[in-house]
Amino acid sequence: MSVLDAHQLAEGVDKQRQLAEQLFQTLLDRTRDTEGVTRAGWGEGEQAAVELLHDVAHSLGLETSFDELGQIYITLPGRDRSEPQILIGSHLDSIPRGGNFDGYAGVVAGVVSLATLKEAGAVPQGDITVMGIRGEESVWYGIAYIGSRFAVGDLPFSELEQLHRADTRRSIIEHISACGYDTAKLQQEIKGRISPENTKAYLELHIEQGPVLDEREIPVAIPSAIRGNVRYPEARCLGRYGHASAAPIDNRQDAMLAVAELIHRFDLFWQEQIASGAPDTQLTVGRVHTDSDRDGMTIVAGECRFTFNFGGTTSEFIAAGEAQLESLVTEIATRRNVKFEMERRVSSEPVVLNEGLRSLLFELAADHQVPCHEMATVGHDAAVFSKADIPTAMILVRNQNGSHNPEEAMRMVDFMQGTHILTSAALRLAGET
Amino acid sequence: MSVLDAHQLAEGVDKQRQLAEQLFQTLLDRTRDTEGVTRAGWGEGEQAAVELLHDVAHSLGLETSFDELGQIYITLPGRDRSEPQILIGSHLDSIPRGGNFDGYAGVVAGVVSLATLKEAGAVPQGDITVMGIRGEESVWYGIAYIGSRFAVGDLPFSELEQLHRADTRRSIIEHISACGYDTAKLQQEIKGRISPENTKAYLELHIEQGPVLDEREIPVAIPSAIRGNVRYPEARCLGRYGHASAAPIDNRQDAMLAVAELIHRFDLFWQEQIASGAPDTQLTVGRVHTDSDRDGMTIVAGECRFTFNFGGTTSEFIAAGEAQLESLVTEIATRRNVKFEMERRVSSEPVVLNEGLRSLLFELAADHQVPCHEMATVGHDAAVFSKADIPTAMILVRNQNGSHNPEEAMRMVDFMQGTHILTSAALRLAGET
Repeated sequence: MSVLDAHQLAEGVDKQRQLAEQLFQTLLDRTRDTEGVTRAGWGEGEQAAVELLHDVAHSLGLETSFDELGQIYITLPGRDRSEPQILIGSHLDSIPRGGNFDGYAGVVAGVVSLATLKEAGAVPQGDITVMGIRGEESVWYGIAYIGSRFAVGDLPFSELEQLHRADTRRSIIEHISACGYDTAKLQQEIKGRISPENTKAYLELHIEQGPVLDEREIPVAIPSAIRGNVRYPEARCLGRYGHASAAPIDNRQDAMLAVAELIHRFDLFWQEQIASGAPDTQLTVGRVHTDSDRDGMTIVAGECRFTFNFGGTTSEFIAAGEAQLESLVTEIATRRNVKFEMERRVSSEPVVLNEGLRSLLFELAADHQVPCHEMATVGHDAAVFSKADIPTAMILVRNQNGSHNPEEAMRMVDFMQGTHILTSAALRLAGET
Repeated sequence: MSVLDAHQLAEGVDKQRQLAEQLFQTLLDRTRDTEGVTRAGWGEGEQAAVELLHDVAHSLGLETSFDELGQIYITLPGRDRSEPQILIGSHLDSIPRGGNFDGYAGVVAGVVSLATLKEAGAVPQGDITVMGIRGEESVWYGIAYIGSRFAVGDLPFSELEQLHRADTRRSIIEHISACGYDTAKLQQEIKGRISPENTKAYLELHIEQGPVLDEREIPVAIPSAIRGNVRYPEARCLGRYGHASAAPIDNRQDAMLAVAELIHRFDLFWQEQIASGAPDTQLTVGRVHTDSDRDGMTIVAGECRFTFNFGGTTSEFIAAGEAQLESLVTEIATRRNVKFEMERRVSSEPVVLNEGLRSLLFELAADHQVPCHEMATVGHDAAVFSKADIPTAMILVRNQNGSHNPEEAMRMVDFMQGTHILTSAALRLAGET
């Protein structure tokens, strides 16, 4: 048993390229929709992924087990089974008519890593486990990270049982049951399977969601942080309709001028924050609509619906943004005699990824001669493991056409380069013997 | 033949209240829609108004004549028929499902004035003529003031024949012909029937479009000016769609943030103009829509459609507004890397109403003890006559619930007070004998 150098390990990974291609193609064939793929959490597509992985793991001679939600864990046993494991994971579900690589690529990369090490006869000191995470996409049950939150013991049954799938209107319990799992156990389950005591590190390879790497012509990124966001999906401003030319300007209640002021003044605040060094922030007001049934060029808008969404990688920026939004809303509403109804608020805390792991990944990328970018990324299961105090890092792989759409694309050569880094990192962290 | 004092004249007008009520009720009955009334220019409803007025004028012993567009002129002959006439007018058409008083009230007031004078045996020095104007509302043929522009010789046949009614798609020529008028004559007609040489003054009574008088509890206003406007009914901003969290902020092309900046910065400019004394301005951005088919809370808006509409009573404000808009559009488009397509521009010049006539109306309002407000008003046929160098003034009558809607309402007591002033003014201007 010799320690593999970077070159040998990369060669070993490259030998598994056919395995990776077969895993991608088979699941694509089994979950194809009118365009792209559809894999609902605890639906047919996601279940097909679990079954495919189970069969492949078996044929590779790897251990498999399942938790109460039917999440699969594929393990290359270490020499000392009592050692904390190295966990590699990503999600198996997709959005409706999404891409084949979003989430699934990270699980395939993990399986390729295990197959490589197994084939090379490498026996790590501790276990290396690949987790096929379920229910990551919020589109199905209204919340994200169902599987990873459950795995770290952060999703009580009382919350789980409230969830209903948006398209079928059936409860998640019914869907889990329909996949063949015994949901009676869920009511007893309290403690998460994954904890800082039994898991030394969580590593996740994922396609990048945006165009940054493609535009910069870099195959891989090691993210510095996962951005937190504050989102208002259903905000509106209520004023009073009036005749554009006849309503007196001194007592108008113009909902549209009020919303424009809110957006632009928050935009100015945001630009100031960027100028003074707030890193990796975003501001998006993606939907704005006056009421089509009542609006018009010569009518003062009595109502405007809008979404509001900002985020960043520091709690300071998020807190400052919330304070600024509240202050603007109050001031503008009072001065303009309108009412803001911000309604439902959805938020996530920013997560700084583990510095030691990030350094290791950069070091290994250099060993493998993989050009590597540093940037913030968006919400992933990695945030859940990080919040559960498990040292966490990620590898982003360049994709073309962005994610969350059927045109999503990833080059196999980029995927293999990311998997070189992942495999080396897993082996290094698990301890080579 | 004695000169009537204010009290006698008011009494004479009040005796005609039944005539006014009958004129309102009869046309309401003949042009009622599912709600409100509908009187399309050169459609059934407007034609019904012309025919009703013709019958009533005949029964009152007044002269009638028609122009080539079928506009009715009802005349109380003066002692000297060569004297320039006093013209009283307003429009007979309505918007679809509009109110019974918008426009028509001014014609009824004119007929009541003539009936009063005729009944009192008053023979003015010059003719007093009431004009039933057609095609004032832009909703039918896309442009406003068709009848009044034709009457002053400001609507050439080449422009007229291009017009098509929005609902029927048939040409205005077909509609005029269907009303029974000989459209062959139109092609020869060049000179307008109404000119400064034959018309000493134009007076128009109209319901107020807005809530000002009702809120201030004043029955009548004498407008100072007709506001000019610059309007963009179909503006849009084009950027580029992107993932809210993943699209890098330094090369976003966010159409919504750009439009919000444009609106709010113009709003600030507008407020400065008001603070520095620009009178009777308005700014309305009544419609704003990101693209429902593509927008979302987590998507950078690649497109935003909006209307833009501002106005005021001075050419200086209008010019400053146009310059400001152009400068903002250019600056924002460049800095944000978006494109503004302002598309079709519709504008009207502001009109200052005749000062001598306004003073006379205020004086007569005082004689009649009618509380009277001064304010700017919106576009009316009066603007056309004023631009044709005919001394012009207006009387606005308080209405409830605004205009251009089926809930429009006017109290007869307010209408009669406005008509007291109108009748006195017509007689004074025509010259009592």
